[in-house]
Amino acid sequence: MVVKLYGAHMSTCTARAMICLEEKQVEYELVPINLFDAQHKLPSFLSMNPFGQIPALEDDDLTIFESRAITAYIAEKYKNNNSTNLLRQEDIKESTLVKVWMEVEAQRYEPIIRPITFQFFVAPLFGKKTDQNIIDQNLEKLGKILDVYEKKLRCTKYLAGDYYTLADLHHLPCTHYFMKTPYASLVNSRPRVRAWWEDISSRPAFMKVAENMVYAKN
Amino acid sequence: MVVKLYGAHMSTCTARAMICLEEKQVEYELVPINLFDAQHKLPSFLSMNPFGQIPALEDDDLTIFESRAITAYIAEKYKNNNSTNLLRQEDIKESTLVKVWMEVEAQRYEPIIRPITFQFFVAPLFGKKTDQNIIDQNLEKLGKILDVYEKKLRCTKYLAGDYYTLADLHHLPCTHYFMKTPYASLVNSRPRVRAWWEDISSRPAFMKVAENMVYAKN
Repeated sequence: MVVKLYGAHMSTCTARAMICLEEKQVEYELVPINLFDAQHKLPSFLSMNPFGQIPALEDDDLTIFESRAITAYIAEKYKNNNSTNLLRQEDIKESTLVKVWMEVEAQRYEPIIRPITFQFFVAPLFGKKTDQNIIDQNLEKLGKILDVYEKKLRCTKYLAGDYYTLADLHHLPCTHYFMKTPYASLVNSRPRVRAWWEDISSRPAFMKVAENMVYAKN
Repeated sequence: MVVKLYGAHMSTCTARAMICLEEKQVEYELVPINLFDAQHKLPSFLSMNPFGQIPALEDDDLTIFESRAITAYIAEKYKNNNSTNLLRQEDIKESTLVKVWMEVEAQRYEPIIRPITFQFFVAPLFGKKTDQNIIDQNLEKLGKILDVYEKKLRCTKYLAGDYYTLADLHHLPCTHYFMKTPYASLVNSRPRVRAWWEDISSRPAFMKVAENMVYAKN
């Protein structure tokens, strides 16, 4: 049975899972869930994720949710599909540093960058006014985080080391939208962060998924 | 060299790492970092965690931060110390469900329960007034999350399955403080959630750490 991913192209969490499926060249089908029709709150979807949020993944008899658990599952189950080594599990130090920087993305980066793109792109879609204060407060915090990234990326090519891993991949969806705002200079003004972004965003797996990542009502 | 954990007894993130060290019977030393003296912003600490937050862990030549990356490292490196199997790595389905519920704790549970305990205990410590609106808004959200937990815990004894894992352990520190607020009935009124809490909070590893978990200025 082909892997099924339930989600929506514009969703950053769905995109995170799709980029990983593409990286590991896993055959899959995207089953569209229409957020504007609240299909993610229907019993059929809640049976896959009781919290009612996309995406969910079905693979044989396993059904899981939470995008970062989905990517870890794909990276491990399909590790032998190709040579892209997203978890570095052969070495506990390397795999631990991947986990450290995956936590940085989940706990520090996304909670700051998401409100910016949400206010800029999503609020207007739902007929709400963009709250510039929220944007400004988070831009200031994001600058400080990117200062740490700039310093780290002077020492290693990617966040966890000199190799592309899930820690980098997890940054792609939110940063994709952020780079379309007028605030992209926060990335572009930091040479190492900019080079890192240009590198990871030019990977074919991401480019294929990014083509369809546009905030729109249909 | 003995493992060194840099942190503070009252910190939930430090406690998360300590509980895991105790569960896996790892010999370690807690190196106290005084938050009120801002020792976590000194260059000596920033060299371990550039984001300036406790805890950090030193084990031989590896220095890491982010409490959930620290617990995953301890659970893996010291897995043979005793029979407590916190990651279930022998079975990809079991280990994936552990990751799913670790993500639920990190992405859904903690962002809701932490503002409640912060407003109740921590804000007054820093001379600030408790914001009851923040507490009330998050209590409502927490009730909905615990409804999902109640349903899940009707099917399995613990969150990821019929075995205690990191997914349960990660809930301990914040819930410890929450159960000391007047809102503990949100847990106690849900029979399966209550039984789960009584079970995981009576484990000796947690009880040893919890003894010193008190919000105080020294």
